[in-house]
Amino acid sequence: MFAIYGHQNAARLAFYGLYALQHRGQQSAGIVTAGQGDGFAFKKGMGLVSEVFHEDDFSRLPGHIACGHVGYASAGSYRDIQPFSIRYNDQFFTLTMTGGILNGPSLRRRLEKEGSIFQTDSDSELIMHLLARHMHQGLEQGLISALNLLRGAYCLLLMTNDSLIAARDPRGFRPLCLGRMEDAYILASETCALDLMDAVYLREVEPGEILFVNRQGLRSLKPFTPLKHAHCIFEFVYFARPDSNVFGQNVYLARKRQGEILAEENRTVTAKFAMSFPDSGTYAALGYSAARGIPFEMGIIRNHYVGRTFIQPSPDIRDFQIKIKLNPVRELVRGQEVIVVDDSIVRGTTIKARVQSLRRAGAAKIKALIASPPCRHACYYGVDFLGRGELMAGSHTVEETMRLLDLDDLRYLSAGGLLRSVRAEKNADFCLACFDNNYPLPPEEERD
Amino acid sequence: MFAIYGHQNAARLAFYGLYALQHRGQQSAGIVTAGQGDGFAFKKGMGLVSEVFHEDDFSRLPGHIACGHVGYASAGSYRDIQPFSIRYNDQFFTLTMTGGILNGPSLRRRLEKEGSIFQTDSDSELIMHLLARHMHQGLEQGLISALNLLRGAYCLLLMTNDSLIAARDPRGFRPLCLGRMEDAYILASETCALDLMDAVYLREVEPGEILFVNRQGLRSLKPFTPLKHAHCIFEFVYFARPDSNVFGQNVYLARKRQGEILAEENRTVTAKFAMSFPDSGTYAALGYSAARGIPFEMGIIRNHYVGRTFIQPSPDIRDFQIKIKLNPVRELVRGQEVIVVDDSIVRGTTIKARVQSLRRAGAAKIKALIASPPCRHACYYGVDFLGRGELMAGSHTVEETMRLLDLDDLRYLSAGGLLRSVRAEKNADFCLACFDNNYPLPPEEERD
Amino acid sequence: MFAIYGHQNAARLAFYGLYALQHRGQQSAGIVTAGQGDGFAFKKGMGLVSEVFHEDDFSRLPGHIACGHVGYASAGSYRDIQPFSIRYNDQFFTLTMTGGILNGPSLRRRLEKEGSIFQTDSDSELIMHLLARHMHQGLEQGLISALNLLRGAYCLLLMTNDSLIAARDPRGFRPLCLGRMEDAYILASETCALDLMDAVYLREVEPGEILFVNRQGLRSLKPFTPLKHAHCIFEFVYFARPDSNVFGQNVYLARKRQGEILAEENRTVTAKFAMSFPDSGTYAALGYSAARGIPFEMGIIRNHYVGRTFIQPSPDIRDFQIKIKLNPVRELVRGQEVIVVDDSIVRGTTIKARVQSLRRAGAAKIKALIASPPCRHACYYGVDFLGRGELMAGSHTVEETMRLLDLDDLRYLSAGGLLRSVRAEKNADFCLACFDNNYPLPPEEERD
Amino acid sequence: MFAIYGHQNAARLAFYGLYALQHRGQQSAGIVTAGQGDGFAFKKGMGLVSEVFHEDDFSRLPGHIACGHVGYASAGSYRDIQPFSIRYNDQFFTLTMTGGILNGPSLRRRLEKEGSIFQTDSDSELIMHLLARHMHQGLEQGLISALNLLRGAYCLLLMTNDSLIAARDPRGFRPLCLGRMEDAYILASETCALDLMDAVYLREVEPGEILFVNRQGLRSLKPFTPLKHAHCIFEFVYFARPDSNVFGQNVYLARKRQGEILAEENRTVTAKFAMSFPDSGTYAALGYSAARGIPFEMGIIRNHYVGRTFIQPSPDIRDFQIKIKLNPVRELVRGQEVIVVDDSIVRGTTIKARVQSLRRAGAAKIKALIASPPCRHACYYGVDFLGRGELMAGSHTVEETMRLLDLDDLRYLSAGGLLRSVRAEKNADFCLACFDNNYPLPPEEERD
Repeated sequence: MFAIYGHQNAARLAFYGLYALQHRGQQSAGIVTAGQGDGFAFKKGMGLVSEVFHEDDFSRLPGHIACGHVGYASAGSYRDIQPFSIRYNDQFFTLTMTGGILNGPSLRRRLEKEGSIFQTDSDSELIMHLLARHMHQGLEQGLISALNLLRGAYCLLLMTNDSLIAARDPRGFRPLCLGRMEDAYILASETCALDLMDAVYLREVEPGEILFVNRQGLRSLKPFTPLKHAHCIFEFVYFARPDSNVFGQNVYLARKRQGEILAEENRTVTAKFAMSFPDSGTYAALGYSAARGIPFEMGIIRNHYVGRTFIQPSPDIRDFQIKIKLNPVRELVRGQEVIVVDDSIVRGTTIKARVQSLRRAGAAKIKALIASPPCRHACYYGVDFLGRGELMAGSHTVEETMRLLDLDDLRYLSAGGLLRSVRAEKNADFCLACFDNNYPLPPEEERD
Repeated sequence: MFAIYGHQNAARLAFYGLYALQHRGQQSAGIVTAGQGDGFAFKKGMGLVSEVFHEDDFSRLPGHIACGHVGYASAGSYRDIQPFSIRYNDQFFTLTMTGGILNGPSLRRRLEKEGSIFQTDSDSELIMHLLARHMHQGLEQGLISALNLLRGAYCLLLMTNDSLIAARDPRGFRPLCLGRMEDAYILASETCALDLMDAVYLREVEPGEILFVNRQGLRSLKPFTPLKHAHCIFEFVYFARPDSNVFGQNVYLARKRQGEILAEENRTVTAKFAMSFPDSGTYAALGYSAARGIPFEMGIIRNHYVGRTFIQPSPDIRDFQIKIKLNPVRELVRGQEVIVVDDSIVRGTTIKARVQSLRRAGAAKIKALIASPPCRHACYYGVDFLGRGELMAGSHTVEETMRLLDLDDLRYLSAGGLLRSVRAEKNADFCLACFDNNYPLPPEEERD
Repeated sequence: MFAIYGHQNAARLAFYGLYALQHRGQQSAGIVTAGQGDGFAFKKGMGLVSEVFHEDDFSRLPGHIACGHVGYASAGSYRDIQPFSIRYNDQFFTLTMTGGILNGPSLRRRLEKEGSIFQTDSDSELIMHLLARHMHQGLEQGLISALNLLRGAYCLLLMTNDSLIAARDPRGFRPLCLGRMEDAYILASETCALDLMDAVYLREVEPGEILFVNRQGLRSLKPFTPLKHAHCIFEFVYFARPDSNVFGQNVYLARKRQGEILAEENRTVTAKFAMSFPDSGTYAALGYSAARGIPFEMGIIRNHYVGRTFIQPSPDIRDFQIKIKLNPVRELVRGQEVIVVDDSIVRGTTIKARVQSLRRAGAAKIKALIASPPCRHACYYGVDFLGRGELMAGSHTVEETMRLLDLDDLRYLSAGGLLRSVRAEKNADFCLACFDNNYPLPPEEERD
Repeated sequence: MFAIYGHQNAARLAFYGLYALQHRGQQSAGIVTAGQGDGFAFKKGMGLVSEVFHEDDFSRLPGHIACGHVGYASAGSYRDIQPFSIRYNDQFFTLTMTGGILNGPSLRRRLEKEGSIFQTDSDSELIMHLLARHMHQGLEQGLISALNLLRGAYCLLLMTNDSLIAARDPRGFRPLCLGRMEDAYILASETCALDLMDAVYLREVEPGEILFVNRQGLRSLKPFTPLKHAHCIFEFVYFARPDSNVFGQNVYLARKRQGEILAEENRTVTAKFAMSFPDSGTYAALGYSAARGIPFEMGIIRNHYVGRTFIQPSPDIRDFQIKIKLNPVRELVRGQEVIVVDDSIVRGTTIKARVQSLRRAGAAKIKALIASPPCRHACYYGVDFLGRGELMAGSHTVEETMRLLDLDDLRYLSAGGLLRSVRAEKNADFCLACFDNNYPLPPEEERD
């Protein structure tokens, strides 16, 4: 999620911003611009940012305000691609959001009973309906009234023809930062989007804050009752880019500390060397290797030309989808005991195939160290892949997981250790619900 | 506009139907299917039917009900491509329509005041909102209540998960026919769509009729006060395909009669031969040639490979866009007096370039006979190109037009002659508003 | 085949020229340019001219000399797409040709024995090899020596870095004309390519002539023993565009005369009206209709949006490939005796399906008049589709053909009538070998 | 370069093989198959292997023999894409090669004088001509005679309709290995292509060996006078993939030893940590870090979604092309002295921009250690990028280079150290000409 206010190349910069944030959603991308004349312009499509946008799009996206999104829209559901735009009383409104609204279904049913029609399943459309129902109070108070109805996690960006509004739920589940580039203001999910364009990082948008950006500059409101914060710790485990800061701290350093604490917590595991599967566990592996004094090696090489091209598996080749991407260095691995550090185990399918690939390259023993606790519980606050399918640790003990993955050893980081890696204490401002079942906003109440 | 109920290859047949109806809209195409499971599936895009759909789309469009549209959505406004779908109370509704709703803007303003949000400018979305507001009356009565609010011209097709509903406004401005193919019912704007699939023509959907098609078969309602019919006579002049029947009669024969009546009304015009510009005036030219005993020649040859490819004009070639498509047969035209029969003059730009091209090929005299009266007034009932830009005859006399187009003679068919060509009398059930300013539904009243 | 010498937009004009000549080959297209610096530039591809070339290609095709081809290269054989270029002694040569070299295989075997290697099966490559073997005599004498070895039909265009050379075999099988546009010279298969760019027609390249075009202007050589001419009469039956002149006379008028002579030769055939299948037989049908006083009707309507898009046939629709393109006007055809005028019957498959389509539309009797004699013998001089597959008239009598095509009557134009249509006598300068087995250059002698 | 003999999915396996070898050439790819019927089939194109080939190509590439290439064909020169095929005496021959033929120009001039024509500038076409000139001696002796004329570096694969022939020049400049998969034989430039398909590595093709593979199995000839070997050491520095073995030894381990020897040779360089620019110097950096006991960090993060999409630089962003791919971890780098290990400096442009990017992220001191000696001399044996443009070390001293690149220190590995990294002594069987100007085959002699 990226937005910029006050730059003549707003669309192009939004494109670069989304490009830097591509890891947050690879299936769809969209940019809407406003601020030139009465209308707005947009381009959306399925695919990577670099696939959806082409050079000649930018001349068709005028305006000094832009707002964009990368997401997980399912195939064909073009209408679901954010940002979401409407015309209301001859004015344009465009909304982008991340997160999850727990009482969405019940709010939707209520609106339908009152004659509203929905064209998508998205929370964006829902929020836009709520806003329209309160617009008679004016935009500012109407937005506050609409957001007051929501139970859930959200960072949202609302663009009108002459302003940009950012809002973050009072618990601050998901990250959103504010930056500046020349006279323009930028809002982005992670700081790596600012780095790409040499923009200056100003601060986080605060939980419960509504930030209005327009010709007069910035104006901040905090209209909601303050609540205990619940920053998503999974951003530090897997989601965010290592070169980003989220929730005000650096991801690379947090991951490296996860490795160091893994070393503290598992002093007896031995091996010829430590490695990771490219690239997610690499930073923890470096921390672990340094803390234990065990050499770090790149035991598996990634083919950098894999791209996104769909290549049919061959009937002649086993585990093709892994092999096409990764090849163990046989001379390194053959006959050795190795430690593999990985960030997390979600469904376990990827790690399983990679372990097999190391086995076939001749590894004698494979010991896995996971830089987060067993991931057992679904996320309702925006990490969608933690809600779909079966979580390996949800239905299997560590012992069973080890056997299923054909590992010789398997150790997880403790929840306390994970909190320490982000320099937080117990009961800190983080959400660890997927690890500890401690939901800041329980989903059960909504089952009506 | 095409829909089919009750065929296992519904999407593919809708594709063929739209293909046959391509002349009714070349800028966008869409098909939505339903009837398998709870959901619906769709494919839409900018371009010709054959560009939007590919073989592998059909496996992704399951269901025995399909409904499709070809239209004039402006570039980029993907959301405006019909059919228009919503989910309401966990049910899907898909609407397709042709025509024009005169009180659309005021209905829209009223709905927005009550908190509705609009994502497009389309009449389809408007009707869907009206339907949703009345759904508490049930689908059948709700639809009647919604349609009762409309002032305008419409043929609409409404698809639910287990039924197909067709409705036509009480004046019957636009054509809609009912056909049958095996056990399936088909609704189409013109009969040429039935011909393509060897479907049997059953009858026209009547003005003011609502037709319900579902597992129980057909059911017809006529809930509206009957009004004098106003069939669009422009369908016979230009819009419909010559091999189609619309409003119950054949287009080819009507056009040929236009040529015969032109001959009657203009007995003194002489020439070496009569010709047309491919292909619109050809049928009237044949009728004229036979009635007058003047030979018919193909004086201009069309390049059949023009396709839709955009080819840049050359700085070295004058009137390139005409030349790339049409080339006069110089040996035929050089030094001759020729009669050119054309269907109508709208803005006059196309005919002007074509006349120039005949001049450069050496034609001595060029006399134009137009198979319809001077077209002076905008259409509000769905012939969009009669509403945009300047109508040549709206601001110029026949004499001026003749000079502007560099013609040696210019004659128009009379309004009475045009009515005779469709075997109708004065005050018959036809709308000639674009020719005679006699609007069945005056647009002025809506200017509030 | 098109070439231009001396125009700054040479590539673009070659593109337009090929576009006008698209009917002579729809499977591949290529343009090579020269005259700027030492090198040459090219673009080739499978598909229509408008599919192969895009606006941005022209900036990559500099030079004031261009030469292009449209052809029938079989799928995938990219290397076979003309023009054919080589580098020889640091100079570029590019060759384009139409026709057929009868002693090609034996010349090729001889060259291979001497160590030549071939990358394609094309006659162009063969001629280039022969030229290279004689280049020690200089370009002019070397070309004469190379052409002297050929037995066959050819029009060829040879482009060097500073000149353009055209050559036509002494019998003049295939057409090639010379035109002028400003200071540039143009060579083209048909005059319609000149018309498109308002170029002036100068004359035919004569049989046996070699024409050199360079900075000094035109220079003509006639180094070969004169032979009786043998212009391909099939150009007037089917191949050339009606608005073109080939071999110095107009195609439209010749086809109309074919219809008139058909009328003379078949005075007893009666019908309600005469029609053609769009578009090939239309001109003869007009001639026939006028001569007999039988009305001409467009009994079958062509869908102008068919394009080249490949559309899968439906299992639910018979004769789909015909229906998707053509629809009979049922109201016209039903219950009537109709005369269909067609240009020729080659394999008979297309006409058969079209006759079926008229039958299903209710035609009572269908009588076919063919504007050429029965086509019984293969062509070795460049009309490739007369050499492939079985010719209907080659193995069936007229009576059998009539039954196989489900016709009520079938009449062919006589060979004498065909000659009269091009205003020629018996023993005139035309090749009718496909009709009368009288080969100007017998192919048998080459079977070694 | 990849070939397979005797597998029913030959084309698909060639595709995978080329995919694994993509790093050896990213601009063009081609596969030719044979062994089914008399003909051969091919697919070639500009772009990555995954862009050129699609699933449906494989059904059009039948045959149990396949041979493919990835290369650097310049834009548009489709004809230059290898493999190169000809038909000679009704037999197909397909040739693929890597390397460089020093006496190519003089051989070519001689052949042209004898009447040969060339369609490309490639060495493949030249060798095919030489082969054709000697084919009267039979294929085996003809090939030996043709190869005997060549002065240069080559690995070549020659495919006929029923056999596959591999040949390597007597000095063995470039790598070529032999593998086995079920009953099929594989020839590949690097072993990573074997790993992908779980094929067994058998041995290197030996310098000066010609290997015939056909239905009878393998047959080896060594018809050339043995010469001192000259394996390209740059394969170990940069060219080959780290998980490959080339010239019989592992690349990863050699690179790691380069880092260890760098550590030995530069004991006094100090820093907070060592890093590399992803990914080329990483393995040496790991070796260096371990040997010196200085921590290894990933100081720069690669955006994995860069792909090959061309993204226009923004006028608002400096050093855009670097930033779009790599982002320094500011929290890690800011204020620190860092050691950057890189594999080599060729023209110096890439490293310069990357150093700038570290500076802007706040690095206090940047010290570069290069895992190879200064690269001063062009390569004539197939490493094309060492022959084009200016080599930084060719015209600048180490001191100057350091200043130009804005480095605080710059150290190179010694030539002796590089030889030690591949476990070789002085005067070993390696070519270090680009480093030491000691050309095994001097290019000068050919300047005639």
